Amino acid sequence: MHNILLGEEFWHLFPDDHKYLTFLKKVFRHEFRKNGFRRISTAMKYNKVLRENSELGIMKAYIDNNVVEEIQPVYFYYMSRFFPKWSEEIRIWAEILWENDPILDAILIYITYWVLTKVWLWEEFSIRINSSGVEKERLKYSEELFNFYSDKKHLLTPESLELLDTNPMLILSSVDEDEQILSKNAPVMTKFLKKDSKAHYAKFKEYLDLLEVPYTEDNTLIAPNEYCTHNIWEFRHSETNNLISSGFRYNTLWTQLWSPKEVPAVWFHTKVEYVISLLREKNIKIKNKDSIDLFFVQLWDDAKKVVLPISLKAREAGINTVVSLGTPSMKEQILKANRSGAKYIVIVWFMEAKNGIFQVRNVEAGTQEEIKKEDLIDYVIDKIWKDSLDFYCPARDLLTE
Amino acid sequence: MHNILLGEEFWHLFPDDHKYLTFLKKVFRHEFRKNGFRRISTAMKYNKVLRENSELGIMKAYIDNNVVEEIQPVYFYYMSRFFPKWSEEIRIWAEILWENDPILDAILIYITYWVLTKVWLWEEFSIRINSSGVEKERLKYSEELFNFYSDKKHLLTPESLELLDTNPMLILSSVDEDEQILSKNAPVMTKFLKKDSKAHYAKFKEYLDLLEVPYTEDNTLIAPNEYCTHNIWEFRHSETNNLISSGFRYNTLWTQLWSPKEVPAVWFHTKVEYVISLLREKNIKIKNKDSIDLFFVQLWDDAKKVVLPISLKAREAGINTVVSLGTPSMKEQILKANRSGAKYIVIVWFMEAKNGIFQVRNVEAGTQEEIKKEDLIDYVIDKIWKDSLDFYCPARDLLTE
Repeated sequence: MHNILLGEEFWHLFPDDHKYLTFLKKVFRHEFRKNGFRRISTAMKYNKVLRENSELGIMKAYIDNNVVEEIQPVYFYYMSRFFPKWSEEIRIWAEILWENDPILDAILIYITYWVLTKVWLWEEFSIRINSSGVEKERLKYSEELFNFYSDKKHLLTPESLELLDTNPMLILSSVDEDEQILSKNAPVMTKFLKKDSKAHYAKFKEYLDLLEVPYTEDNTLIAPNEYCTHNIWEFRHSETNNLISSGFRYNTLWTQLWSPKEVPAVWFHTKVEYVISLLREKNIKIKNKDSIDLFFVQLWDDAKKVVLPISLKAREAGINTVVSLGTPSMKEQILKANRSGAKYIVIVWFMEAKNGIFQVRNVEAGTQEEIKKEDLIDYVIDKIWKDSLDFYCPARDLLTE
Repeated sequence: MHNILLGEEFWHLFPDDHKYLTFLKKVFRHEFRKNGFRRISTAMKYNKVLRENSELGIMKAYIDNNVVEEIQPVYFYYMSRFFPKWSEEIRIWAEILWENDPILDAILIYITYWVLTKVWLWEEFSIRINSSGVEKERLKYSEELFNFYSDKKHLLTPESLELLDTNPMLILSSVDEDEQILSKNAPVMTKFLKKDSKAHYAKFKEYLDLLEVPYTEDNTLIAPNEYCTHNIWEFRHSETNNLISSGFRYNTLWTQLWSPKEVPAVWFHTKVEYVISLLREKNIKIKNKDSIDLFFVQLWDDAKKVVLPISLKAREAGINTVVSLGTPSMKEQILKANRSGAKYIVIVWFMEAKNGIFQVRNVEAGTQEEIKKEDLIDYVIDKIWKDSLDFYCPARDLLTE
């Protein structure tokens, strides 16, 4: 993670980053599951190309595996690595295929809205929406924009002048302040929507209202791909305007690539690393599940042979247990124990190994008690909260027929 | 997943595969956590090359981020995609850096052994171990093997004849049956271990015994890389001999690549897709957490506007709820509801929307009851087991300072 944010060369997530990632995945997973989505992973590379986007992935997965005739519609979600422009980032996204109702677009926005709100980021973002209509409507709109900007060529930047001939809609999203003011008087896409597109967009907004999602309409929000249709949206950071999450409907991708029959589809993704950085900025921390309850410091082979079986039993009882195994010096081991943040430290030397009586140190309290070997596990369980035990039996999740 | 196993071109994991993957990740995660490991993700690509292995990744991550001086030793685990020879696969692996004690090699084996046993695969695998000593010892051994096979050139396959001059140790792992018989009389690596390597290997075996892990020594087990040192091991399927999991110590990688100071390290990985296929073969199923409790079938906009707010409340109460939103035909919606495996189906048409009295169908029992709109959520909670509710409040995991 360090790398993406600092613009360095390689991307890594260290354990502190992972705590946030695991948490966000859990929150989204619960939300997706409750809404009937199921998880999928698609190929990261197609021939020699790494995936940059997700919306193609799902459709390709369907075609590759000839499961197009499977249960329709499909509600999928995905949490994994993408490689936009050869960088790396983790994205959480969801897609719904074979459904054209704009209520689904609203539901996808609602999920993101709900998650960001529940992780204490409700003040950090704003939602903007627009409609990109269908291709025919966009072409007409593009012509009108061309006419509009052509009269004001002297006010345009060199970049925008180039766009004027290729894709005048992109001038709307210029970052140049003067052009932004100019674009406020430009014709708006929604005026060019015909009956069907207009109704689709109106219903979209109606459902957002029903779901009590706050949003603003933004005419400068432009469809990022030519296969986009109808609704598009973005979650952006209120202060910096950085992108947090975005989505769009893309009813025509299927027809453009594979078959004449339209497959309506809608998609969104959330930039997880950025959400993590927002949580960090607000000093929101994730409770530590990696915390160590019990740390054994031991010297000599005899001690190791006493400690090892107890440590296995302690772990089976749900106590997160570390045994310092590889370091020969007692001083270094105790240093390690302290750095680990362990709640209880037990030092086993040849005497303790022999008589089976351990000194158990409570790190936080700074106290020490003498505990018999056979009582150690019960003692620790009693001391740390019972419900903080990390007990899990895999058989609980298994079935055979 | 279909693709890797069937040798097809692209790799995808569909929701049924994901249930197994999520389960295995959970089992390993608990085991790692209890043993003091923390999760990391490393870059998938370095410049234009995709990662094939993991052991380099961790060390690179450390170097890239100048965290070499961080807390030592490090216990890391990882669950992610790798690209061996441009294919794709998911691996679970762990690495321990800055520890040379062979007890750690034994612990890594124990973790895999424990997991495979607990997921009901205890009859499926056997564990083989060997020592690869250090480079000097291996060179001597290689010479001896060269002498041994040179006398028997007429018994070797053309492939092995080529290996004789380049790397005679690889002849030991030949799949040719006659050569396997021949190799039974070949000199064995462990005879060439000097004092330190011999002691390291002996302790390794002693700790495996202490941990009650069953294993056999196999002289034909060869270190896969030249930076391997000391212990190597493999978990293989008892019947097919396919690789399930493997690991090795690699104390000299660091010195070979970056600095003269040795960083002792040990590593293992498990081939997750293969474990999933073994679970499937044995007809072991994972309990379904994606199951849908409540499915709303609705017709007309008015019904949608009644159903949507209730569905949100139902989800907040932990009921996995799907609303059929995009399909206009009632018949198709009911088909969809049945195919979804939902436990309860509620049909809301204009009449139900108006008078707020719903027909709630219990799919399994084939019965139907009339329930008032405001009682619906309590009714469903009461019917499905309370502890199967999928309730999760993100705030539970959050802290601020």
